[in-house]
Amino acid sequence: MGGDLGPRVTIPATLEVAAQSPQLEFILVGDKSQLTSLLHSQSENTDVSRIKLVHAPVAVTMGDKPSHALRYKRDSSMWIAVEMVRSGAADACVSGGNTGALMAMGRHLLKTFPGIDRPAICKPVPTERGHSYLLDLGANINCQAQQLVQFSMMGAVLAASVDQNPNPSIGLLNIGEENTKGNDQIQLAAHLLSQWPQLNYTGYVEGDGIYSGIVDVVVCDGFVGNVALKVSEGVARFLTDRVEDIFNVGLYGRLVGRIARPLLRKWHTQFDPARYNGASFLGLRGTLIKSHGGADQRSFTYALRTAIEHVDKQIATCIHDQLATYQGCRRN
Amino acid sequence: MGGDLGPRVTIPATLEVAAQSPQLEFILVGDKSQLTSLLHSQSENTDVSRIKLVHAPVAVTMGDKPSHALRYKRDSSMWIAVEMVRSGAADACVSGGNTGALMAMGRHLLKTFPGIDRPAICKPVPTERGHSYLLDLGANINCQAQQLVQFSMMGAVLAASVDQNPNPSIGLLNIGEENTKGNDQIQLAAHLLSQWPQLNYTGYVEGDGIYSGIVDVVVCDGFVGNVALKVSEGVARFLTDRVEDIFNVGLYGRLVGRIARPLLRKWHTQFDPARYNGASFLGLRGTLIKSHGGADQRSFTYALRTAIEHVDKQIATCIHDQLATYQGCRRN
Repeated sequence: MGGDLGPRVTIPATLEVAAQSPQLEFILVGDKSQLTSLLHSQSENTDVSRIKLVHAPVAVTMGDKPSHALRYKRDSSMWIAVEMVRSGAADACVSGGNTGALMAMGRHLLKTFPGIDRPAICKPVPTERGHSYLLDLGANINCQAQQLVQFSMMGAVLAASVDQNPNPSIGLLNIGEENTKGNDQIQLAAHLLSQWPQLNYTGYVEGDGIYSGIVDVVVCDGFVGNVALKVSEGVARFLTDRVEDIFNVGLYGRLVGRIARPLLRKWHTQFDPARYNGASFLGLRGTLIKSHGGADQRSFTYALRTAIEHVDKQIATCIHDQLATYQGCRRN
Repeated sequence: MGGDLGPRVTIPATLEVAAQSPQLEFILVGDKSQLTSLLHSQSENTDVSRIKLVHAPVAVTMGDKPSHALRYKRDSSMWIAVEMVRSGAADACVSGGNTGALMAMGRHLLKTFPGIDRPAICKPVPTERGHSYLLDLGANINCQAQQLVQFSMMGAVLAASVDQNPNPSIGLLNIGEENTKGNDQIQLAAHLLSQWPQLNYTGYVEGDGIYSGIVDVVVCDGFVGNVALKVSEGVARFLTDRVEDIFNVGLYGRLVGRIARPLLRKWHTQFDPARYNGASFLGLRGTLIKSHGGADQRSFTYALRTAIEHVDKQIATCIHDQLATYQGCRRN
């Protein structure tokens, strides 16, 4: 029910992925009458026997405070969907709804692994060398050094599993590359990371280093990560809008635009936000994926595919296993 | 002497601005023999009587720690140039050198106004509506609420004076627009700003809001501002490099590229980092402008013009005057 367009996006996206993945089963949780009519009007050529509907009388709204949703919305579609992951009735939950409420329900119902203080929100971002993972993107505003270390490990597990990268490099986002730069937490995190031999920590990365792709995993606190991600979106939109402007002004501009547009579309897909939809809540004992609230059908399919990949690659289990190596390391 | 190319950039840039501004006098501080030969080889058609040379036996390097430069490099070109602003021998100092050392010398020699804890680094960034001012860009890693309030006022003075904007709007950079978002310092700063009637504080701004230009001044701590600025540079370079790529591949791509390139150049100038060169150290009792270390001649002329504008508009004095309105406000 979440996101700007609710089931008008989530249902066609589910039908699209269902048609491509005949081995998967889907559970749509929400207002059953609304879901039923939309599903039947859109599924003309699709076998819907693998799509189950589960009724939820209410929905979490974008304006709900996480604490309010957690306390009073236990009959919401979001709660029921997360609970299904907890009980094993579902392998993963994908939501386009209220991020804070989803995080609160994820923590309450699924719990984090021992050794993980709080989950981190993680997304891939396009870079000159492919993509890198950036975390945390807003779940943890004030981070202790130990949390930055946990994020590093979880991001490395994701890069190793999803990209078959045996030794992903990790950088801490900072305002300079010298040892003396940054605040106490970052400097302590750098020290702790250098003592975890299983992790390939390479040092500090500056803001522009994210997009040159000099490391596979870029770690920062949730405030900085959220600003970095949204600034990136803002700059990308600003620049692509300006390209549209110059090819829309004057006869010559429009003429050149007609010729250049197919190539510019190719350019646009290289950093297309839709392709990078699907943020992971790492550190939970289960798979919880957040789709962007403004996602369209195509974009939501990427969030669904992210969830499928997390289950296939057993990301949560891998994080749990990797944690053990750190605790072993600490004991010695 | 500072920046990647030293006097090979600063001298021709000075000659260019000197030719355009016959009322100005320039003082070049550095290695006199090097400056003399470069100046005479490049000034064929320019009257150099308005350009004085002052010898400095040493230069601050990019690797010098600010504390080291402050203590041991009092015969450096940077120290001598800043000292000239203090003594009144110069109206402004422009440097492409070590930012931390320049800040340390600025604070030590020029001092901040009473009521300003530390200077803030401020730069204009291009937006959909023209440009906005972003500060702090790295001088203050951990900021108290009161400092964010000081930055807001100083950014507003800059926008009001330089852009003849009688009532510049101010936003605090945050990870959401709701009152509950952000850390304690930001929430307290928002409260304090709403109590300063001379300032047009409009609320929180998210990372992507910087580039839509919804406020004239965007305020944040120096860590976040530095990351935001460098992420912006990284994304812009990533996207412009990708445009070059698509117009350089294949016969068709190169053909279209030849037609589209003049328009793309126009696009590029809209966010051209060279045009936005020249960061101000606001809050000092004098004008100190930092040019990007990688600036070329054209770019360095913008830093020089920024300094001229600060002196013309008496930015430092305006900041001092505006501070008085706040202290008056606090007393009531």
